[in-house]
Amino acid sequence: MVTALRSSRPRGPRWLRWDNEGTAASVRAGVAKEWCGVPKIVDHDARRAEIVRATWRIIARHGFESATMREIAAEAGYANGALKPYFATKNDLLRATYQFVFEQTNDRASAAHDDESGLDALTRFCREVLPLDATRIDEARVVVAFWGAAENIPAAQDQHITSMGMWREWLIDWLTQIDPSRDQTAAADVLLQFLLGAQITAALNPNRATAEGYEAQLATLLEGLVGVRPSD
Amino acid sequence: MVTALRSSRPRGPRWLRWDNEGTAASVRAGVAKEWCGVPKIVDHDARRAEIVRATWRIIARHGFESATMREIAAEAGYANGALKPYFATKNDLLRATYQFVFEQTNDRASAAHDDESGLDALTRFCREVLPLDATRIDEARVVVAFWGAAENIPAAQDQHITSMGMWREWLIDWLTQIDPSRDQTAAADVLLQFLLGAQITAALNPNRATAEGYEAQLATLLEGLVGVRPSD
Repeated sequence: MVTALRSSRPRGPRWLRWDNEGTAASVRAGVAKEWCGVPKIVDHDARRAEIVRATWRIIARHGFESATMREIAAEAGYANGALKPYFATKNDLLRATYQFVFEQTNDRASAAHDDESGLDALTRFCREVLPLDATRIDEARVVVAFWGAAENIPAAQDQHITSMGMWREWLIDWLTQIDPSRDQTAAADVLLQFLLGAQITAALNPNRATAEGYEAQLATLLEGLVGVRPSD
Repeated sequence: MVTALRSSRPRGPRWLRWDNEGTAASVRAGVAKEWCGVPKIVDHDARRAEIVRATWRIIARHGFESATMREIAAEAGYANGALKPYFATKNDLLRATYQFVFEQTNDRASAAHDDESGLDALTRFCREVLPLDATRIDEARVVVAFWGAAENIPAAQDQHITSMGMWREWLIDWLTQIDPSRDQTAAADVLLQFLLGAQITAALNPNRATAEGYEAQLATLLEGLVGVRPSD
């Protein structure tokens, strides 16, 4: 079970490899050239990463909707037209930034897969998703902007479905490790809805988004679902 | 407690009375003129309602972001410029449509306040919020679009905070009626996050949004939080 989890966990930063076409071929070409030591290819990846980080900072500062490609380029330190070869539209950029947040969260939670199981793994993962500090509140702002735009973008919906499907499998596995005698599907879905709802509260009502509050909610929910409270 | 609930529940359709200024004075003026029987004022309200319903249909069909004011005007049966006197911007329109959905949900759940208490009231309310049918999935699409835009609009954030604050008080009251021996704040917040998260799943992953699934999740959650499953 744990082996299956590990193999399904994203290994490289996929958001770095996204381009306008998003083809596997261009990704492979980029990696191959990097292996051969051609620095220009590496620069493309670095530039893409800088643009995504600049988008992230702008969303954290004042949301995505009013941000312009010009402003994002300036934030990343590039001229206006410099974004187009990497991200043709604002929506491409939003998708890459969402993917960045998703993988950043998973990287932080990776100890849950590597060294822990059951309640410890579940608790660690939930804490990495819950908006418990400024970084995670900024992440919440990115995903809420992404959800709002995704309704109209089939590729973004697929991205949401794939990433949340992955989290759902992990939650089912950890809950089953805690109590194998029950079908944990509904409990996993409840946990997932809770984690998604917490992003909205953090993005839109930051005064209510305290670490103490989320910890109390997580403890109440886990006690209700599996009969035990998480340790500190 | 129940009296307080009733008095805090919105009584008239506030979304009907929204205009560009949104001032209490203009609302009072509109109502006063309506009372005096001047039909033109009533037409304004009807027109505003038609525009909001047209926006709702367009969001349900293909999301909000790509919708234009021209398209919304056409859907409502008006010429392009006819929207401006009622809603100066798309965001004003989105806010009014969110308010419409919020009050429509509350109206459906009103029996929870008038005739029920405790678990029955709580269950009825949750079922009206959860995306259990096509209408409620369309409502989910409206609120997810609203959240995405609201990050950048202080007035929309205030609207979210006010409306969710109201729901939160109701949830605390009903949970306290079920078990007065516990502080139910964290449990109410868990329930609220769950209800918000369910909107995202319904809007972005409609294949996963089945009534049976949400009912199973609600039963699992309520059993965990208050030790009893809701009746059918």
